[in-house]
Amino acid sequence: MTPTLGVGLIGYAFMGAAHSQAWRTAPHFFDLPMRPELTVLAGRDAVRVADAAGRLGWSSVETDWRRVLEREDVDLVDVCTPGDTHAEIAIAALEAGKHVLCEKPLANTVAEAEAMAEAAARAAARGVRSMVGFTYRRVPAIGLARQLVAEGRLGDIRHVRAQYLQDWIADPQAPMSWRLEKDKAGSGALGDIGAHIVDLTQHITGQRLTGVSALLETFVEERPLPASEGSLSGVAGQGTGTVTVDDAAVFLGRFDGGALATFEATRFALGRKNAIRIEVNGSRGSLAFDFEDMNVLHFFDGDEPAATAGFRRIVVTEPEHPYVGAWWPAGHGLGYEHGFTHQVVDLVTAIAKGEDPTPSFAEGLQVQRVLDAVERSAAERSVWTEI
Amino acid sequence: MTPTLGVGLIGYAFMGAAHSQAWRTAPHFFDLPMRPELTVLAGRDAVRVADAAGRLGWSSVETDWRRVLEREDVDLVDVCTPGDTHAEIAIAALEAGKHVLCEKPLANTVAEAEAMAEAAARAAARGVRSMVGFTYRRVPAIGLARQLVAEGRLGDIRHVRAQYLQDWIADPQAPMSWRLEKDKAGSGALGDIGAHIVDLTQHITGQRLTGVSALLETFVEERPLPASEGSLSGVAGQGTGTVTVDDAAVFLGRFDGGALATFEATRFALGRKNAIRIEVNGSRGSLAFDFEDMNVLHFFDGDEPAATAGFRRIVVTEPEHPYVGAWWPAGHGLGYEHGFTHQVVDLVTAIAKGEDPTPSFAEGLQVQRVLDAVERSAAERSVWTEI
Amino acid sequence: MTPTLGVGLIGYAFMGAAHSQAWRTAPHFFDLPMRPELTVLAGRDAVRVADAAGRLGWSSVETDWRRVLEREDVDLVDVCTPGDTHAEIAIAALEAGKHVLCEKPLANTVAEAEAMAEAAARAAARGVRSMVGFTYRRVPAIGLARQLVAEGRLGDIRHVRAQYLQDWIADPQAPMSWRLEKDKAGSGALGDIGAHIVDLTQHITGQRLTGVSALLETFVEERPLPASEGSLSGVAGQGTGTVTVDDAAVFLGRFDGGALATFEATRFALGRKNAIRIEVNGSRGSLAFDFEDMNVLHFFDGDEPAATAGFRRIVVTEPEHPYVGAWWPAGHGLGYEHGFTHQVVDLVTAIAKGEDPTPSFAEGLQVQRVLDAVERSAAERSVWTEI
Amino acid sequence: MTPTLGVGLIGYAFMGAAHSQAWRTAPHFFDLPMRPELTVLAGRDAVRVADAAGRLGWSSVETDWRRVLEREDVDLVDVCTPGDTHAEIAIAALEAGKHVLCEKPLANTVAEAEAMAEAAARAAARGVRSMVGFTYRRVPAIGLARQLVAEGRLGDIRHVRAQYLQDWIADPQAPMSWRLEKDKAGSGALGDIGAHIVDLTQHITGQRLTGVSALLETFVEERPLPASEGSLSGVAGQGTGTVTVDDAAVFLGRFDGGALATFEATRFALGRKNAIRIEVNGSRGSLAFDFEDMNVLHFFDGDEPAATAGFRRIVVTEPEHPYVGAWWPAGHGLGYEHGFTHQVVDLVTAIAKGEDPTPSFAEGLQVQRVLDAVERSAAERSVWTEI
Repeated sequence: MTPTLGVGLIGYAFMGAAHSQAWRTAPHFFDLPMRPELTVLAGRDAVRVADAAGRLGWSSVETDWRRVLEREDVDLVDVCTPGDTHAEIAIAALEAGKHVLCEKPLANTVAEAEAMAEAAARAAARGVRSMVGFTYRRVPAIGLARQLVAEGRLGDIRHVRAQYLQDWIADPQAPMSWRLEKDKAGSGALGDIGAHIVDLTQHITGQRLTGVSALLETFVEERPLPASEGSLSGVAGQGTGTVTVDDAAVFLGRFDGGALATFEATRFALGRKNAIRIEVNGSRGSLAFDFEDMNVLHFFDGDEPAATAGFRRIVVTEPEHPYVGAWWPAGHGLGYEHGFTHQVVDLVTAIAKGEDPTPSFAEGLQVQRVLDAVERSAAERSVWTEI
Repeated sequence: MTPTLGVGLIGYAFMGAAHSQAWRTAPHFFDLPMRPELTVLAGRDAVRVADAAGRLGWSSVETDWRRVLEREDVDLVDVCTPGDTHAEIAIAALEAGKHVLCEKPLANTVAEAEAMAEAAARAAARGVRSMVGFTYRRVPAIGLARQLVAEGRLGDIRHVRAQYLQDWIADPQAPMSWRLEKDKAGSGALGDIGAHIVDLTQHITGQRLTGVSALLETFVEERPLPASEGSLSGVAGQGTGTVTVDDAAVFLGRFDGGALATFEATRFALGRKNAIRIEVNGSRGSLAFDFEDMNVLHFFDGDEPAATAGFRRIVVTEPEHPYVGAWWPAGHGLGYEHGFTHQVVDLVTAIAKGEDPTPSFAEGLQVQRVLDAVERSAAERSVWTEI
Repeated sequence: MTPTLGVGLIGYAFMGAAHSQAWRTAPHFFDLPMRPELTVLAGRDAVRVADAAGRLGWSSVETDWRRVLEREDVDLVDVCTPGDTHAEIAIAALEAGKHVLCEKPLANTVAEAEAMAEAAARAAARGVRSMVGFTYRRVPAIGLARQLVAEGRLGDIRHVRAQYLQDWIADPQAPMSWRLEKDKAGSGALGDIGAHIVDLTQHITGQRLTGVSALLETFVEERPLPASEGSLSGVAGQGTGTVTVDDAAVFLGRFDGGALATFEATRFALGRKNAIRIEVNGSRGSLAFDFEDMNVLHFFDGDEPAATAGFRRIVVTEPEHPYVGAWWPAGHGLGYEHGFTHQVVDLVTAIAKGEDPTPSFAEGLQVQRVLDAVERSAAERSVWTEI
Repeated sequence: MTPTLGVGLIGYAFMGAAHSQAWRTAPHFFDLPMRPELTVLAGRDAVRVADAAGRLGWSSVETDWRRVLEREDVDLVDVCTPGDTHAEIAIAALEAGKHVLCEKPLANTVAEAEAMAEAAARAAARGVRSMVGFTYRRVPAIGLARQLVAEGRLGDIRHVRAQYLQDWIADPQAPMSWRLEKDKAGSGALGDIGAHIVDLTQHITGQRLTGVSALLETFVEERPLPASEGSLSGVAGQGTGTVTVDDAAVFLGRFDGGALATFEATRFALGRKNAIRIEVNGSRGSLAFDFEDMNVLHFFDGDEPAATAGFRRIVVTEPEHPYVGAWWPAGHGLGYEHGFTHQVVDLVTAIAKGEDPTPSFAEGLQVQRVLDAVERSAAERSVWTEI
């Protein structure tokens, strides 16, 4: 009889909905060693959380996240709140003996992230597991990219170029949001989307960034307040608010294997909605990926004769590709949400096996250190800043 | 209080799994006027169907589909069996007062399809609804394509070119399967995938094909038997079997608005896994779609000045696009399975409103007539054959 | 000392300009065994031909093409006139002992083409050479495609799909032109551009079409007369003229190796300017080409493991590729006109070697027979028509 | 009667060949106000230069470039030598009253470039013209990009990302060349190809870079000597030489209108042969260009409704596009070399009109200052370095 895994989810906005779909869906496509139960959803507003629980499929609700940690029917706490609350909730949960899945970025500061990584290490010693939600790692094309590098198909890595391009505030009249306030969001494009490409490039190459040189920019410093507080509806109200985070971050970096890197994270790339673009050039091969065409990986095999060499457009929908065999016959592409399902699969499997899942909180901390070095470099005339 | 809709699903292979995911998922993302219940799953093998019901989320099982029709807790029968059983099950279900969702092609012969369309018409008069599962209609990019034509953005349609390209039996050693036997499958590439592009081009243009000129071909007539009977594993066993359906179909056509069309459906296009490619050229604009990049529609606006005119790569992931707003923020693409969820949404909505959903059985019959004309033309030296 | 080759060019419109650039350019990039001299340009209007000769670099002019054939300083006659004059000029030139390069289509009728092919055969016996100008054969990516097929990299050919898409008369108000009159042009899109894809697919596959089933269509039957007679300026004048050729041709075909083919040639594909698109699927590999991206060939190698297989985008600008080494370093693409230069190179080389160049008039005749079968099929309810 | 313009070309390698083709071709397609004569070709080796003159079409030769400046039949000196000789030759030519076209980069040092710009200013006062050969400005798609920015279609520029990617020394066994020696080449990828993207992005945006933060890298410091000295054949000989220039340069920048920029120039991007990739994002629109598809410009118009907005693939082969009307009918693409022809056209036109052509030596100097700031930043821990 498959044991159950009681899940308590904190937060029910965009990420809460994505995680809910993953918890619901994983058991229908994968043979999981434990059966997740959508035990409890937590949120501060009793009416809203009840409504969300019904819609998202959770069996009960709490209005205080601390109550979730006290419940015996909860084995795992899934943290989908804004970044300023991650440290407090995740550490408390680990100390309460609950496994933790925490959305990225791990925290809003390095100090918080350090405390979280330490708590995770202590908990791991007691068999309590933790994972940070860099979900794009589980897109099949990204998994294939990592495999190719690990198999040596790229040789020595020379260049990495990574961009995460969005445009949702390219219009100067787009209204304020908590994501534009430093005390809630920690940083702007840098932490929200830049964190993903830092993690992905390190994940694919199996290497770490050793230093950065950076520029940050806030193009639009005053924005209209939203029609109603907290609204993300895009409708402007009266008065203006001050944007206290970066609109865009660009930085150079160097990987510990010697590769040069360029990074760009922005919410002002008009026409690009969610373009995560990663290219890696090595001495034997090259890779290119764009999330706007997420089921595809481009691979150049330098061992081919020149006359027939070229970037191959690999449609990553074959049973031979990571995670794909569990879904549909060859050629039937997956979407954004499937990465979350794969994340649940790997997390539940690790818990059942008694292993530490990845990415760990320590990995989340290391990404936080990169982001911190970016901010320090940008504040000091872009000077080279080691990590 | 939202009323419930008890669903009985017949069949649990590829299509059964896809439909199950849709029934489970739809209520979590869309405000449905009725709440679907996964009441019963039917299949002939008691062990297998029980296993599938557990995996796919169905509350009970039957080993005789007739029992599903007798159950009072079943309001809708979802037919996911091979085509040779569609007519019997669907007609019986409609006569039993159950709404019916029937996978495509509607039937294996025109005669069967006619009987089904007649049964559907009789049932509709009693408020019993029916729909045929041309699910690709509900891919958002296809929905947008139809909108643009309907708004007149293409003007008079001049050309349609449509291909459905797969390669799963391009290897002559790929083993036999029921899909290669005429008495079970009705036809080969023509009915299995050609039916989709006939339906899609008619759906997008809002026009009907009036005639065809066709070639059918079976490239590999003898294939090894599979290792175990009924296996789809791709492993060859002993002996060979005879392929009695087409491997590929190509045909010319003309739409009732005067456009010329070319169609191609094949399982021998090496390197193309599930490439549904549709192009439409009109006097004011043009469209291009490829399911290998399913979240994208290419649109050429002939009203643009020549210096800045070009095919626009519309990433169909904005809230303004059909169905998209219910899912994720802009830029987060959907996958193959989402079309099935949209199908459930539209079907449930139509039932609740007391309207006939589309595509109707009559539309399924019309597609069957096109397929029949293709076969007759191919048998008569490709002579022009009216529909 | 390199011998010279005196060239006489008949016609100085679009094709005349392209051929002139080729004759001028070839010796600067290729080591030719004979040095072409731009000896004489012929045209009926004395003022215009003199102006063209100055602009295009020809040393003298004639107003009667027969005079060109009489000149001793002319070794080769290059025929760039409309199709209704090809037969008369080319046959007379061959009989006068001049080598002939004749633009495609070889002639306006099969009878004319037969006479030309016979004249070419007689001339060849006397060491007089002839070639028909299917210049796209000499695009490097097409050359590479043919090589890959010849090397067996595609295996048995299963499918060919070819389109030549233009849009220059998609607007019903685009004025009349001699290209829309049957007595001058022979046919419309079929002969003008359809001829190219018939030749290219046969050239790439090394196979011949054995039969066709076809539809022809004239979408716009009356058009405004141009502002001044003979004008191609696109400005409409008074009154209308009747279009007596096809606007578009679609046809099915079968190659002698068993492959199925679809063809489409049209001037009504809005947004496509000169899109020659060719795809070939075989049992071991597949190819795709689009002249809108003419320096690229896509190749799928079916021998690759499934996990890393994909269409390779081969940028055909390496020294290893056909013709490319004579031009620029790797990566510096060629344009439309370079195919004409390659044609001159191959023609001059064959003449110097005493060999018959390709494509021969016999090959041009065979293409003419395909076009004729298309017209006959279209006139007889698309019935299968052998070639 | 059209006046003549006697041209003396110094150098006959890659650039010499490209310029020769341009001088020969321009008068055949464009109505030039002066008729260029290929008067004299200069090179140190008498045998080689004579051979080159014959092949490239020059009427006479000199083995000392100073003799070219003394000749009365030379009106313009075209400098196609390595960068270490640009200053001496160009200044002497200007002082001799000859117009000068000088290949890029203008010089190997800022000091040389300053002296050249001063000489050019003095010469201009006497009606003697000068131009630096940033030829990619004259690719039609780049011209269209600049037009769109100038017309305000992009609004305020937010982001520029530019890459020039090659791979010709990605193999560590690729042999030494003068291009890898600092005293001859000045710098490596930075000056050779990075100069182009600095110029292009400033040209397109109409803005200047104000500062940079940079990294330079030499991945392979020792390389085999070529088989014969001076050989570029790619065949290795005995012994090794030391690479004294950068293999790759990456840098951040800021434009004077506030945009953030990332730049990358490398010879180690395996699989990219000559990929000049430029993207610009503004508040109203965005652009993307890749020289691997040089006849195409991608344009996103932010004024479009969201449902139909998308990057347009503009095929820049219409008569409405810059330079295109002089060549072929719509849809017939140009190649690498055509930019050189356009350069000749604009230069000759400016000389005839008595105007200063662009890009001027002052613009070349400004690019040199950017390259210098890149080197200084890279030498000082990537610190922000103003230009």
